[in-house]
Amino acid sequence: MYNFKNDYSEGAHANILNKLLETNLVQQLGYGDDEYTSAAKALLKAKIDNPQVDIHFLSAGTQTNLLVISCLLKSHEAVISVQSGHIYAHEAGAIEATGHRIITVESMDGKLRPRNIEQIVQQHTLRPHVVKPRLVYISNSTEIGTIYQKAELEALSQCCKQYNLLLFLDGARLGNALTATNNDLTLAEISRLTDVFYIGATKNGALLGEAVVFNRPDMYPDFDYALKQKGALLAKGRLLGIQFLELFKSNLYFELADHANKMAMKIADATRELGYDFLTHSTTNQIFPVFPRHTINELYKKYLFFEWKQVDENHSAVRLLTSWATPEKVVDEFIFDLKALQ
Amino acid sequence: MYNFKNDYSEGAHANILNKLLETNLVQQLGYGDDEYTSAAKALLKAKIDNPQVDIHFLSAGTQTNLLVISCLLKSHEAVISVQSGHIYAHEAGAIEATGHRIITVESMDGKLRPRNIEQIVQQHTLRPHVVKPRLVYISNSTEIGTIYQKAELEALSQCCKQYNLLLFLDGARLGNALTATNNDLTLAEISRLTDVFYIGATKNGALLGEAVVFNRPDMYPDFDYALKQKGALLAKGRLLGIQFLELFKSNLYFELADHANKMAMKIADATRELGYDFLTHSTTNQIFPVFPRHTINELYKKYLFFEWKQVDENHSAVRLLTSWATPEKVVDEFIFDLKALQ
Amino acid sequence: MYNFKNDYSEGAHANILNKLLETNLVQQLGYGDDEYTSAAKALLKAKIDNPQVDIHFLSAGTQTNLLVISCLLKSHEAVISVQSGHIYAHEAGAIEATGHRIITVESMDGKLRPRNIEQIVQQHTLRPHVVKPRLVYISNSTEIGTIYQKAELEALSQCCKQYNLLLFLDGARLGNALTATNNDLTLAEISRLTDVFYIGATKNGALLGEAVVFNRPDMYPDFDYALKQKGALLAKGRLLGIQFLELFKSNLYFELADHANKMAMKIADATRELGYDFLTHSTTNQIFPVFPRHTINELYKKYLFFEWKQVDENHSAVRLLTSWATPEKVVDEFIFDLKALQ
Amino acid sequence: MYNFKNDYSEGAHANILNKLLETNLVQQLGYGDDEYTSAAKALLKAKIDNPQVDIHFLSAGTQTNLLVISCLLKSHEAVISVQSGHIYAHEAGAIEATGHRIITVESMDGKLRPRNIEQIVQQHTLRPHVVKPRLVYISNSTEIGTIYQKAELEALSQCCKQYNLLLFLDGARLGNALTATNNDLTLAEISRLTDVFYIGATKNGALLGEAVVFNRPDMYPDFDYALKQKGALLAKGRLLGIQFLELFKSNLYFELADHANKMAMKIADATRELGYDFLTHSTTNQIFPVFPRHTINELYKKYLFFEWKQVDENHSAVRLLTSWATPEKVVDEFIFDLKALQ
Repeated sequence: MYNFKNDYSEGAHANILNKLLETNLVQQLGYGDDEYTSAAKALLKAKIDNPQVDIHFLSAGTQTNLLVISCLLKSHEAVISVQSGHIYAHEAGAIEATGHRIITVESMDGKLRPRNIEQIVQQHTLRPHVVKPRLVYISNSTEIGTIYQKAELEALSQCCKQYNLLLFLDGARLGNALTATNNDLTLAEISRLTDVFYIGATKNGALLGEAVVFNRPDMYPDFDYALKQKGALLAKGRLLGIQFLELFKSNLYFELADHANKMAMKIADATRELGYDFLTHSTTNQIFPVFPRHTINELYKKYLFFEWKQVDENHSAVRLLTSWATPEKVVDEFIFDLKALQ
Repeated sequence: MYNFKNDYSEGAHANILNKLLETNLVQQLGYGDDEYTSAAKALLKAKIDNPQVDIHFLSAGTQTNLLVISCLLKSHEAVISVQSGHIYAHEAGAIEATGHRIITVESMDGKLRPRNIEQIVQQHTLRPHVVKPRLVYISNSTEIGTIYQKAELEALSQCCKQYNLLLFLDGARLGNALTATNNDLTLAEISRLTDVFYIGATKNGALLGEAVVFNRPDMYPDFDYALKQKGALLAKGRLLGIQFLELFKSNLYFELADHANKMAMKIADATRELGYDFLTHSTTNQIFPVFPRHTINELYKKYLFFEWKQVDENHSAVRLLTSWATPEKVVDEFIFDLKALQ
Repeated sequence: MYNFKNDYSEGAHANILNKLLETNLVQQLGYGDDEYTSAAKALLKAKIDNPQVDIHFLSAGTQTNLLVISCLLKSHEAVISVQSGHIYAHEAGAIEATGHRIITVESMDGKLRPRNIEQIVQQHTLRPHVVKPRLVYISNSTEIGTIYQKAELEALSQCCKQYNLLLFLDGARLGNALTATNNDLTLAEISRLTDVFYIGATKNGALLGEAVVFNRPDMYPDFDYALKQKGALLAKGRLLGIQFLELFKSNLYFELADHANKMAMKIADATRELGYDFLTHSTTNQIFPVFPRHTINELYKKYLFFEWKQVDENHSAVRLLTSWATPEKVVDEFIFDLKALQ
Repeated sequence: MYNFKNDYSEGAHANILNKLLETNLVQQLGYGDDEYTSAAKALLKAKIDNPQVDIHFLSAGTQTNLLVISCLLKSHEAVISVQSGHIYAHEAGAIEATGHRIITVESMDGKLRPRNIEQIVQQHTLRPHVVKPRLVYISNSTEIGTIYQKAELEALSQCCKQYNLLLFLDGARLGNALTATNNDLTLAEISRLTDVFYIGATKNGALLGEAVVFNRPDMYPDFDYALKQKGALLAKGRLLGIQFLELFKSNLYFELADHANKMAMKIADATRELGYDFLTHSTTNQIFPVFPRHTINELYKKYLFFEWKQVDENHSAVRLLTSWATPEKVVDEFIFDLKALQ
């Protein structure tokens, strides 16, 4: 059985594990004051092309989302997100647990648009009886595989400035977004167009690790306290520093994401050629082909994947996720099996 | 410079890293539903000699403390702890951040006693104007290196039952406690005498990892939700499962702790022989010798350690921490240097 | 200018003020331990026909909603409500501020139905990644003036039991519901069919006051602590006790609500006769007639009221609220003025 | 039985109740947008001699304390208070419930001093492992009847500025402080020397009511949202506005406090003359004479009061509280009875 359910089914890229072994007995200070963490932060600042950004390493996406949002908002301030946003759909109410409402809008392609924001702002003016929208949450790539293009992100950024909203980009799959064939954004531009974002590594070759980037140093200077207080500060911070160092000292981070995308696109192309439809137009490592019931049942004999949405009585969209670790021969075999099912 | 500041200055025991490499590309389900996590839980249940306990793996001590305590308490319920307790002294207000007061008592040796509990209970009866004590927090070994003996833990357990208090044992350094020469407790007895406790691995050979044990399965059946909601659930839960598996499939966990203790005791014995006094009587891997100013300054030239407490104008107690990774030759060298300073 | 904006534009019924004067210098214990509070609770238990219920007096609706909900739910548990529910629409995120998501459904008539609940329960099963629905929040009368009939409440109650959900009825305008001409419920039946509800007095003749009724004494025995901790416990609890005593020692509470309803229905009948349409079919003290722009503008010269919803380019539904204090001659005058505008 | 237990055993001053009756049917906007509230705020600004202050009316002391503190602090920031401070001793953990630690110091006379603050600041520097002190909480008069004199408050104010701490003065009994014979402060000076304070009326003639004064308008401009979200905003805000208007349109507020003080001092003087000692040197409306067991038992036959602290085997300090409503003849009778017990 091969598992296409998610992009965290394996451990870490070999370079990372080797580096952990190599540095294992070098003594370091704890809690992120180690040399690897410092070096990794310096490296990321260079890649982002802004020495002023404030970077912190965390362990997981939900942890990152809840810490960033709870630090930046006052109690009555709310978040705007699409309904499929990870913070709304798959984090067990983590944001509400920190005291904030998420105001959602439906979005077919998982992307938020300025007109959504404007409408929500206009609906939330009856002070002090309704919450005050204050932060816009987007993901790139989105939960359904699409990406924001530069013009779209610029429009969102502009809209947020106009309404005094913070723009927070969840980059759990940022590597996949930035290596998509239709991408025209860079780390530097994302840093310029958002207030805060993160560079996800858990889903792109690391054992665990998300790098939060506050784009202005004065955004939340006490974030170290928040990390400690919410249990997110690792005693052996070196574990995060070493991983980001390995991923970014070469182009490894982007190569891994690119591989994941290519594997997904190879399946997508073959699927399309076979005449199947898709629920969404994804250009990254998760695709949502629509298969008949029989095909799904047959595929289940060799593959694990999620049924995402029933389309009609006899068809469902499934979600297939590839990763940095997906072997091309498995992809070829899947395509072969799919063809055989026609 | 050798660092005696803490017991998390190195990476992980080689067995763990090797196992991570060996299992790296085996696909597993995410979020703790992997085979290694299941096997590690089964193994721990056997060691604890109770198949009914409910075990969860977390990443860090503060995270564990805040999650356990916030799940078990209602809003107006409070924690009892000694003032040197980690939750009070070094967790940035993590417990209060979940809404609960910590009621503290001073304790010279870091241990809590039934009479402390009784006094606090008696001072908190003016309902509903004062908080209601509901959970007793202790550490074994304590923050100053001492351990609870069986009779002491039994007395605390009995006292907690009498006053309807939960007993929670922070085992960040449980290995060191259970391998101390004066220890007479076992994992099974700790499980029997407390309501919930944890087995710390971050400070005993793992990259990160704490195993929470709820001693009755109905204590908080929704702890999985809490883990997810507070950002403590790792996508690659295998990372925690594999480590606990390696530490407990043999006697490795206890061997590592024993080594750390032996190294500390070797320094302690030599220090005592040289006529130095100690702030506390520790039998585990952290010792608090009292040195004159001059000696401290000289030691600083080769060693990192914390000055813990000024004793008089010319003397301070320092904290020396050894770990599973402390080489005996460094210990010998330290002793040699200390002798030379007389 | 007469104000039809809300039902809390005046002070309190004269009986209440007179009783405050009469009892003013009688010394009483503080914090709700006074004789008036005890007597009022006994009286309400008799009216509810259940001596086992646990009653507490609070000051305001939002305060009551947030305290009840936060006491009854664990962190990852969520509330189900219609989108127009007061907790979602007009309480500044009070429920989320206590850590809980409100899952909403749209409802034309402001009422929730078992099929809404079932659908939400079915969409929230991916443990532990999504919140767990645990409490159903309804209002009677609803935010748009409609009421639940016995069969409807029984169906909801049954559905909640089936899915292990608590049923909480916001009774800020419970008097208006129970005196509506189409009502077939009693306080006793509401107590039997819900887990917790409250009897609102702020909007029905009191200066302030909401009486929470936990229908089983073991639902939250520590509610007194919660009241104190969240700042809801008045030093002079007599203020609440005296008011509920006055309202319920005779039939005053229901007479006041009945008057408010009759005033609204008189306007509604006249409006209907004049050929105007309504946004909703209300039988209580708030009505939502649809008027042309010109009529609204003319009415604004003499009356205050809210424009609720634009219906088309030239028409809007307005909200007219009557109260225990609305003089019939003002109602007659309004009808006269409305007729004159045709 | 006459009750000396507290200063909230009666209702409200007759002027207030009469004004409530007089204004009862005048329609007003809800939620504090009424004319009485506006007028009362204007009046207080004039008394404070600063038109820039931001004033809000709340219902209770605990509510006020928790709202002010939670709005002004970030999650990891802590409060400094004496151990007898109301927020620590009698509010059921209300501050911790909003996420903040209270760091306490013992104080014989209930007052905090700059050296206490300095010591705490110096003990809380191990960033990010310990909480960050950020707000100093004091009460005037204190919980044991003493008051701050101008020089003391100036020293505290200066100290707070030096350490970047906010100074918050709990004025639940501010009237009693400002009318004490040894007082040399005014409302204007308190406003100048603190960041935020409140003027308590619940314990000085009102049914309920505390007026929070933010001394700079930009301190927390969103406090209205906080009031609403935490359930502290009354629909009939007029109830608070009218009461403050009555208390401050003349000198009534200070006359009532002065009466309470005089009654306490009359008892104190007589008690002192009889040779009894006191636990503290109070100049306001609560005194703590030390009586022998027999005397206490005899007094209990006619009076209610708290035993505050056992002094030795045969003596206890009791707390006697007088109020605006305490009749002088009761005071005379108490003195008579006390003399008879010698």
